[in-house]
Amino acid sequence: MSKLGIIGLGKVGTQVLTDVQQLNLFSEIILIDDRENVASGEALDHSHAQGLTNTAHIKIRSGVYKDLADADFIVIAASEPTDINNGDRTLLARGNYSIIKNVMTQIAAVTQNACIILISNPVDSMVYIANEVAYPSNKIIGTGTALETSRLKTIIANHYQVDPKNVEAFVIGEHGTHAVPVWSKVRIHGMDLGEFEALSNSPKLDKAHITSIINQVSMDVFYQKGWTNAAISRVTIQLIQSMALNQRTIVPLTSVSSEYGLKDGAYSLPTLVDEAGIVQRYAITLDEQERQQLQEAYTYIKQTIHTARS
Amino acid sequence: MSKLGIIGLGKVGTQVLTDVQQLNLFSEIILIDDRENVASGEALDHSHAQGLTNTAHIKIRSGVYKDLADADFIVIAASEPTDINNGDRTLLARGNYSIIKNVMTQIAAVTQNACIILISNPVDSMVYIANEVAYPSNKIIGTGTALETSRLKTIIANHYQVDPKNVEAFVIGEHGTHAVPVWSKVRIHGMDLGEFEALSNSPKLDKAHITSIINQVSMDVFYQKGWTNAAISRVTIQLIQSMALNQRTIVPLTSVSSEYGLKDGAYSLPTLVDEAGIVQRYAITLDEQERQQLQEAYTYIKQTIHTARS
Amino acid sequence: MSKLGIIGLGKVGTQVLTDVQQLNLFSEIILIDDRENVASGEALDHSHAQGLTNTAHIKIRSGVYKDLADADFIVIAASEPTDINNGDRTLLARGNYSIIKNVMTQIAAVTQNACIILISNPVDSMVYIANEVAYPSNKIIGTGTALETSRLKTIIANHYQVDPKNVEAFVIGEHGTHAVPVWSKVRIHGMDLGEFEALSNSPKLDKAHITSIINQVSMDVFYQKGWTNAAISRVTIQLIQSMALNQRTIVPLTSVSSEYGLKDGAYSLPTLVDEAGIVQRYAITLDEQERQQLQEAYTYIKQTIHTARS
Amino acid sequence: MSKLGIIGLGKVGTQVLTDVQQLNLFSEIILIDDRENVASGEALDHSHAQGLTNTAHIKIRSGVYKDLADADFIVIAASEPTDINNGDRTLLARGNYSIIKNVMTQIAAVTQNACIILISNPVDSMVYIANEVAYPSNKIIGTGTALETSRLKTIIANHYQVDPKNVEAFVIGEHGTHAVPVWSKVRIHGMDLGEFEALSNSPKLDKAHITSIINQVSMDVFYQKGWTNAAISRVTIQLIQSMALNQRTIVPLTSVSSEYGLKDGAYSLPTLVDEAGIVQRYAITLDEQERQQLQEAYTYIKQTIHTARS
Repeated sequence: MSKLGIIGLGKVGTQVLTDVQQLNLFSEIILIDDRENVASGEALDHSHAQGLTNTAHIKIRSGVYKDLADADFIVIAASEPTDINNGDRTLLARGNYSIIKNVMTQIAAVTQNACIILISNPVDSMVYIANEVAYPSNKIIGTGTALETSRLKTIIANHYQVDPKNVEAFVIGEHGTHAVPVWSKVRIHGMDLGEFEALSNSPKLDKAHITSIINQVSMDVFYQKGWTNAAISRVTIQLIQSMALNQRTIVPLTSVSSEYGLKDGAYSLPTLVDEAGIVQRYAITLDEQERQQLQEAYTYIKQTIHTARS
Repeated sequence: MSKLGIIGLGKVGTQVLTDVQQLNLFSEIILIDDRENVASGEALDHSHAQGLTNTAHIKIRSGVYKDLADADFIVIAASEPTDINNGDRTLLARGNYSIIKNVMTQIAAVTQNACIILISNPVDSMVYIANEVAYPSNKIIGTGTALETSRLKTIIANHYQVDPKNVEAFVIGEHGTHAVPVWSKVRIHGMDLGEFEALSNSPKLDKAHITSIINQVSMDVFYQKGWTNAAISRVTIQLIQSMALNQRTIVPLTSVSSEYGLKDGAYSLPTLVDEAGIVQRYAITLDEQERQQLQEAYTYIKQTIHTARS
Repeated sequence: MSKLGIIGLGKVGTQVLTDVQQLNLFSEIILIDDRENVASGEALDHSHAQGLTNTAHIKIRSGVYKDLADADFIVIAASEPTDINNGDRTLLARGNYSIIKNVMTQIAAVTQNACIILISNPVDSMVYIANEVAYPSNKIIGTGTALETSRLKTIIANHYQVDPKNVEAFVIGEHGTHAVPVWSKVRIHGMDLGEFEALSNSPKLDKAHITSIINQVSMDVFYQKGWTNAAISRVTIQLIQSMALNQRTIVPLTSVSSEYGLKDGAYSLPTLVDEAGIVQRYAITLDEQERQQLQEAYTYIKQTIHTARS
Repeated sequence: MSKLGIIGLGKVGTQVLTDVQQLNLFSEIILIDDRENVASGEALDHSHAQGLTNTAHIKIRSGVYKDLADADFIVIAASEPTDINNGDRTLLARGNYSIIKNVMTQIAAVTQNACIILISNPVDSMVYIANEVAYPSNKIIGTGTALETSRLKTIIANHYQVDPKNVEAFVIGEHGTHAVPVWSKVRIHGMDLGEFEALSNSPKLDKAHITSIINQVSMDVFYQKGWTNAAISRVTIQLIQSMALNQRTIVPLTSVSSEYGLKDGAYSLPTLVDEAGIVQRYAITLDEQERQQLQEAYTYIKQTIHTARS
C-alpha cells in the first residue's frame, strides 16, 4: 500500500534501508544504485531476515526509476565516494552536481508526487540544484541541520548529564562548517542555561567551544570510522515517519531560501512538514551574532553551488 | 540496568549495533575492536541520534574487556577480513582460531556470567574452539543455521508467494555448504508440501534445487554486495530478545555436540534457550538422507576445526 | 495517508484503539459509537498522550459513517452488552443481527473499498449476515478462530514450557464451543507430539482435555474479569498489519464457506489475506474426527444464524 | 531478568498492563488485586495473545506481595471506585489513604529496592502518605503533573496545528484543579508564543483560557467515557522506560517537597530520574503568578492530606 525508494546504496542508503524497516510503514522498498549488484545483494540480504518472527514480509527489491512512479517517499543518498583523508563535504559538490541532476531528472520523469528526502552532500547546495529540475519545490527536502540539531542536543546533554530529549536546541544554516546553533533559544526543560547550571550545580557550558565542535564531532566520526551514517539515517526515518503520519512536525530542514533577505539560496531553517511536504519555513528572530553567522552560511553555500556548477 | 558487549565492529558488528537498539533492552553497550578508533567512531555516530525523539538515551561507548565484567550478553563478531573474491567461510578458520581463543580468554578472565552469542565464521568450528576456554558451555551459543533457517523459510515462501512466517521449516548441521534442511518436517501452515501445492494450485517445489541454493543465496549476497550482515544481525537480536525476556524459544543453534553418535563436534540442532543460556538440544528424528547429510556436516566441521588448529 | 475506523467503543473496541497505535500505520482514526460521548471521550484521552515522546501525533476523533469514505480498514466491535452471568456468545445473536446489518448498511453506503475486520459475536454468524449487505465479500473478514489458534498455541506451550511461537497449531470451525483444533497437524518445532515428549522428557499431553478447554479458557477470562478483550485485540492488530503491509499471511479466519460440502455457511479456515482482502481459503485435509467436528460447527453456526434472524 | 508488579487492576492498571508490554522490558509481570479473579483473568487474557508473532512470551500472572521481592518496578494504581457523577479526585483521599498505607506497608515488607510509580489519586497526597512507610523516598515517584504536561502540550499544539513534540511546556503543582502551567517557560520550537504567532499567522493563544481547561479536559474525558486511563498509562510506561534504560530524563513528577519554602508537602516539579529513582528536583524560577499558584496548590494538597487522614 505504500512504497519507498532509496537511491544510492552506500553507507548511508543501506543504513536507511536497515532503520526504515523498523517503521513498518512500507510494503515495498525499491533500491536503485548504479551498481545494480549492490542493490540486489542488499535486497536479498534483508529479505533473508523475513523468516524471523520480528520482521515483516515486505517486498525489498532492486529496481529502476519507473518503479518509483507510485512511490510515496524517495530517499536520495547517491554520492561520489568521499575522500577518506578529507571529510570536507564541499569537495563532493562537483561530482554530486551531475549525480543529483541526473537522479532528479529521472525521478521527475516518472512522478511529481513523491516526497523526496535528500541526504547527498553538500546537502544544501544539492537541494538548490535539485530544485532546478521541474518538481514541486515543497516536496524536495534536505536533511540539512536536522542532524546538527540532534548532535547539539547530545553534546549539551552530555555536558549536563541529562537526557537529550530535555534539551531544547536547534541548529540552522549550513550542514557543515557553517552550521549556526541558535543559542538564544536554547533551554533545558524550559530553563535557560544559567538557571539550569545554578539549580543542577553543573559546570558552566562554554557556548563558543560547543559551537566549534558541532561540525567537528562529525569529522571525528568520519576520521575514526571512515564515514558517518548512523545518526543521519535516524534523522531520515524520523522525518519520514512524521510526514507519513501527517504529524505536522517542525524540524530544521533545508529548502530554497528567501528569508532575512538571503534569497535564492538554500539553507536550513525550522520547517513545518506534513504528509504533502513542506508547509512553512519559520524566519525566527535571531540575535546579531546568529544573524551574521547565517549570512556567512548563505554565502558559503552560494559559493559551493557555484563551485558545483563549474 | 542491562549491558551488552559487541566485540568486532566490522560489517556484522555494526549492523548488530544498529539493530539491537530497536530492542530498547540495554542501558549500556560496550564496543570492543582492535581498531579502537572504529569502536569510538561508531559509538559517537550512534550517540548523535539520541537527540531525536524516537531514540533512547543509552550509553554507547568504546571499551575494554574489563567493562564486560557485568555484561548480560556479549556478541562476538570479530573476524579476519574476508577475501572478497572467495566467500568460503572455512578460509577464515586459521585466522579466526587465534582471534576467538584470544577473545574468549579475555572474556573468561572478567566474567563467567554473560551469555555469549558467537557469529564469527566458520561459526561451528569457532564454537568448538571457544569451548576450549574455561567458560560455562551452556552460555556459548553459535548462531549457526538459525540464519539458514530464516533463508529457507523465505525461499520456500517466495516460491509459494506466502508469508515466511507460515512456513514451518528449519535447517541443521553446518552454517555453510553442509547445511541440512530437514525436509521431512517442512509444512506450510500445517500442510505438507503436496497438500499445499494442490490446494493453492502452486507449481511443485523442487527440494533438491532448493537444498542446493540455501548456501548459494548467501554467496549471492556476498558476491553482489561484498558481505552479508543484514539477516545475520536480525537473527542475533531476535535471539538476544528471546533470552533476555526468558521466552524459552527453540531455535537451530550451534553448541558442542553429542547426538547421533556425532560426539565432540559442534553443529546446529534445534535448541531450547532461556535467560541462562542453552537448556537443551533436540536430537530430532531424521530420515536417512538427512542423517547422512548431518554426518557429512559433522565430518566437515571436524576437518575445519583441524585446519583451524594447524 | 491512511485511515482506520473503529465501530463500537466497548471493551474490545477501546483495546483495539490502544493496541493499534503501536503499529504507527494510521494517520487518522475515526471512532464511531452510538454513545457519541464515549467515542469523543476516548479520542480525547488518547490524544492527551501525544505530548509524550514515544507517541505519534495522529488524528483520533469521534466521527460518523461518511468519515469512513476513504478508510483503509474498519474494525467492527459493536455489540449488545454481554450478560455478565452468561458468556455464551450465541445469546448475542439476535441483538447483534440488527446492529451488524445496520453497521454494514451504513458502511456500504459510503465505501466499497475498506477491508472490514469483524469481531462482534457470535462472529461466524455475523460474518454471514454482514455478507447479506452489498459489499465485496473478500473484504469482510471475521477474526473467528484466529483467537482460538493463539490460545491453543499458548496452552500447548505452557504444557511443554516452551515459546508458543514454536508451536505449530491452529483451530478451525466456530469461534466458540464448536472450535475444532486440527490435532493432525500439530507440531512442536517440526516434531510431532510423541517425538517432542520423548526428546524433552515432557509429560504426555492429553488432546481431549485440551480440546475441551480451548473455549473454556475464554470463559475463565470472561467470568474472572468480566469480558475478554486483550488477546482478541492483538489478533486484530496483527491481522491489520499483515494486510496493510501486504504480507500475504495465512491465518484461520471466518468468511462465507463452500468447502467440504458445507455450503452457504460461515466458519473459520486457514485463509490467505493480502492488502486487498481475502485471497483464498484452504480446504485442508482433515481426519475423520476433525471432519465430523467441523460438520457440527457448521450446523451449529447455521442454527445460530437462524436464531439471529428470528 | 526483569520484573514488574502492578497493584490494582482497574481501568488504569489494566491499561498499563496493555501498554507496558510494548516496551519488551519485563520477563515477568505480577498482577495484584483484592479481586484475585480479576488479576488472574487479566493474566490469562493477555497470555492468550502470546501465540501471535508480534508478542513476547513472558510470564504474566496473578501474584502476592512476596512475589515482588525481586521486582524492579512496581506500579500502584489501586483505588477506591470513583463516583461516576463526580470526578473530583480529592473525594478519593480518605478511601485511598488506607489503601496506599496498606499497599506500601506490604511492599516495604518484601523489598526496599523497587522503584515505585504511584498513580492512585489524589496522587500528590498519596505520595506524601506513601512516604510515611519506611521506604527509600527517592524510589517513591508520583506521576503527578506529567499527565497535565502532556495535556498542555497537546492543547497548545492543537491551537497552533503543530506536533505536540514541538511544544516546550510543562505543568507543576497539583495533579488536579491546582495544576500550574509554567507559561513563562513555554516555547514552540524555541520561539515564544508571540514570535510563533506572528511567523505562523496563528490566532492568539489565550493563556488564561487554556490554564482554565487543563484540568477541565480530564473531567471531559471522565464524564464522557467514565474514567481516564489512556494517557496516564502512556505517561507511566514512558517513565518506566526512561528509568529502566537509565536515560536520566527530567519529567514533572511528584515527590516530597521542600522548595520555595513549601516544606513537608508533596507536589510536582521537574525531576531528574535515573535507574535508581529520583536524582533531583529543580526549583525553577517562577514568575509571581506561578509562584502564587504553586503556593495555593501546596496548601490545597496539604488540606487534602489532612482530609485523607481524618
